[in-house]
Parts: sequence; C-alpha cells; structure tokens
Amino acid sequence: MEFTKMQALGNDYIVIDEFNEEKIEESKKKNFVKKICLRKFYVGADGVIFIQKSDKYDVKFRIFNADGSEAEMCGNGIRCFAKYVYERILKKNPLYVETKAGLRICEIFGDNKADKIKVYMGKPSFKPEDIPISYNMEFINKTLKLKNPYIKEIKATAISVGNPHLIVFLEDNNLDEEFIRKHLNIIGEEIEHHNLFPERINVHFVKTINNNEIKIITWERGVGYTMACGTGATASAVVANKLGKTGKKVVAHLDGGKLEIEIKDDGVYIIGDAEMIFDGKLLVDI
Amino acid sequence: MEFTKMQALGNDYIVIDEFNEEKIEESKKKNFVKKICLRKFYVGADGVIFIQKSDKYDVKFRIFNADGSEAEMCGNGIRCFAKYVYERILKKNPLYVETKAGLRICEIFGDNKADKIKVYMGKPSFKPEDIPISYNMEFINKTLKLKNPYIKEIKATAISVGNPHLIVFLEDNNLDEEFIRKHLNIIGEEIEHHNLFPERINVHFVKTINNNEIKIITWERGVGYTMACGTGATASAVVANKLGKTGKKVVAHLDGGKLEIEIKDDGVYIIGDAEMIFDGKLLVDI
Repeated sequence: MEFTKMQALGNDYIVIDEFNEEKIEESKKKNFVKKICLRKFYVGADGVIFIQKSDKYDVKFRIFNADGSEAEMCGNGIRCFAKYVYERILKKNPLYVETKAGLRICEIFGDNKADKIKVYMGKPSFKPEDIPISYNMEFINKTLKLKNPYIKEIKATAISVGNPHLIVFLEDNNLDEEFIRKHLNIIGEEIEHHNLFPERINVHFVKTINNNEIKIITWERGVGYTMACGTGATASAVVANKLGKTGKKVVAHLDGGKLEIEIKDDGVYIIGDAEMIFDGKLLVDI
Repeated sequence: MEFTKMQALGNDYIVIDEFNEEKIEESKKKNFVKKICLRKFYVGADGVIFIQKSDKYDVKFRIFNADGSEAEMCGNGIRCFAKYVYERILKKNPLYVETKAGLRICEIFGDNKADKIKVYMGKPSFKPEDIPISYNMEFINKTLKLKNPYIKEIKATAISVGNPHLIVFLEDNNLDEEFIRKHLNIIGEEIEHHNLFPERINVHFVKTINNNEIKIITWERGVGYTMACGTGATASAVVANKLGKTGKKVVAHLDGGKLEIEIKDDGVYIIGDAEMIFDGKLLVDI
C-alpha cells in the first residue's frame, strides 16, 4: 500500500489517496490508523488523512487522530490535504472540500505547486454553551482561580473555533515566556482539567509582539505541549483582536512555524504552508 | 533519495543502501542524519544505517545515532542491516560484516527471508577499566549507595559488552517491577550519573523468571527509559549466568519484544528478528 508522509507546522500525517479506489475498508480504518500511527514500530504520525471522492464538492477530507478517532476538521491537516490534491489529483483553485464540519474552501497560492494554502476556519463563538464552559456569561478577560504553587489566578478568555480554547495573554498576567515554558506541564494540566470546562480545554499562552504579530505557546487537550495548533492560532488571533491588541490580519509565531490569520465578517481564514516529506510503500501487514 | 525504514525490538532505523553508490557524501552524513532522524518534520528514527562495500569482508555496517554521532556497533541495528543485506543485496550465509567494533559474523535463519539473525556480540568484561567504573576490583553483586527518597542502596553488577551496563536484579533487592517502573525516572537518572561511573552507565532492572528466562526494564544512558537494548540484554544474560541464576541460553523479555542470548566460550551471541516497515522516497531536501 502506498502513502505519502506530510507535515504542516510540525503536525505530521500519513496521507492515503482513496480518490480513485478505497485502499482501507471503512470498517478497518480505525484499527489501521491506530497501528500505522504508532511511532517506531510502524510509520508513525499524528494522524491519517484519507482523500476521497465527494458527492457534493470537488473532494472529500477525512482525518483520523492517532488514537483511531475521526476528527471533524484540522487546520494543519487540511493544508496538507489541499496541497496533495492540488499537486497530484486535481489542479483546481479554489478547491471545494467536503469535511465533517461542512464545506471548507481552500485557496491555493503558487504556480504549479501549492506554496501556501488559505483555509476558512469557520465563525468563532464566545457563547458559553458553544465552548463549553460552566459560566453564566461570555468568559472574556475574566479571572480563573488556580491551585498550583506557581500562579494563583490568571486572566483569560474562552472561545470556540469548533473546539474549545482558553487564551491567556502573558502581558495581562505579568508572566514571561521562560516562566511559562518551565511550568507548562503543571499549569497547562491544571487549566485543561479545571472544573469550568466540562469537555476540558486547549490552553494557549500568547504574547502580543505588535499590532500584527503574536507568539503562541500551546498546551493541547489530551496531548500536552505541542509545537503548533491551527485552531489555537485562529482562536488566539480572534481574541487578540477582540481585546484591541491586534488588527484583523495577524502573523502567529508558533514553535513549529508561522501562520497568517485573517478575520473577516464571515469568519476566520488561515494561510500557511504544508510539506511533502516522503512517499512510502508499506512492507508490513497492518 | 530512496531509503527503507526498519525496526528491531522497537528501535527504528533509516537504512540507506550505499553498496553500489554513495548517496550521502561522507562530510555531509552527520548533518543529514541529525535532520532526517527528526520526528514529525522529517522521516524520524533512532538512527541511520548505511550499507557500504567492505575491503575486508562481505559488507560494511555503519550506524549513526539520531544526534549525528557514529556508533561502533548496535545489536538491534545490525540485525536490521543483516536482514536487508541478505534479502536485497547478497544472499550469503553467514555474512561477514565489517563494523567499527571489528568483524561481526551474522548467521541467518530462514529460507528466502531472514526470519531471525544471530549476531556475535563480543566478549563481555568485568574489568573496572573496561567498563569503566571507579572501583578497585570487579563490581559483582556489590552495594551501591543512593540518595533518592525511594531506595537507599542497591546490589548490582557492572559489566562491559563494548559499552557499560549496570545490572540490578529485582529479587536481590526486594524490589518489584511496578515500583521500578513508577520511580524509574528518578532512580535511573541517579544511577546513570553516579560518581562511580566516569562515562555514565546504562542501567537494567532484571527479574529472573526461571533458569532460562529473564525480564528486563531498561534505562539507557543519555536517553532514559527505552523499550529494548540489545547490548543490555546481552549484559543482563551474562550477569544472570555469572551469578548462577540462569544457564548459558536465555530468552530475554524486553518491553519491545524478545531476544535469545547464548553464552559461549568465545563470547556472547544474540538471536532475534528485524522488520522492514516501508520503502520510502524522500521528497524534501535535507
């Protein structure tokens, strides 16, 4: 079985082209993904992307996490997908992509290659029930009480961009980057599991650099520290704009690379690249 | 550039066939290895094996760690190497392999495929200067003082099989497996850096199951917990035999799989398998 390994901002995916034929039977996909994503013993990846034909749009995006669960959308994953489709299957621009979260339009920049991909990330929401957060109003620049030995409380904002995020600005909490990196395991873990968040939460520590640049350190729900999170960067840029820190176009610097984020009336767009690392041909049974 | 990803006991390697032509210039190998071994951004592996022509023997084995340093030998790596050579380059059995640690004879079991590979691991030594250990005699079943809150001292044996190992039998220290796994980070770290070991040491917590089976939990120098260590399994079997716990043939159960170890007059042999995971073709410049 042939596959392609790709990465975007340090999130790595095994891309399987099922546009013309199904390679992994539907009922076997979950277990296949769990095995092939296992690093060292198999190929190893954060997830598997299947490219399929769509009844409604140009192409269908399906993405599975390494644990075998199918996700609705993924900002880094869909850029890998769009690059692969544009360069190897269908030279159409923009690409209308069917995802479990609905239609996503991917705009391609570059000539023959998809150097950058712009993706609509949906409309963010501050509504408590959308996030969800057990709070009786929007949680914007509010104080969260903590129990760890390092910080007693933080000012933060909760937002959903399809999944839940809590945005903590370093400058609003008199925190510096070094301190957060040092104690991220303790602080991130505590906030993720705070009783305000019934479905837990992704936490981003954000530093405003200037009116159009931010820097983000990410604690991902169920994962821990990660080098980058597309939806988290989107959420951070929206909150920075909401609080008057930045304009509607922001460059987000993440440990895994950078992303451009554009806030429009209909929602948020991210622009970033993706990379093909290698083509592979599996030699083991999975 | 084409490569093959292989694994043995959960140690994974990128195998590059330079038998007929050099693919990575000698002066660029170190940096190439550092990059290609980086997980998520590149292929990702514990190390890179280069297969080259030998002036003296059938074939030459070169192995680089993920940090770019070239190692002398590696029990898991050489089985991957031998399987690749036997199945794709030279159907000769046994294979006479040139390594930086000298000649290694690899005996192949299986018909067309190399199902198992037997490798000579050299002659172990208990001499303090060979290990090295700052002690005025052989350190066999001696007591090591510790400062961590969990164990004040342990009985252990120090041995070299080309690299240094300290073998700690659980049953000689009234320790159980669960306890060791729970506190391995603290205890392993302390022993690795104990002032008796000027070049630090690999630590193995070993449980004797019966006269011909042992179970091993490994703390690898510079790495931490690892699922398996070929030289460590060799060292553990030799010490178990030396202390009268097991015979000359032992099956070692490691978290990454199992190995057979045979102690002979001329030294120690290990028998185990290796697996080809996928063939790859690099799409990025490294």
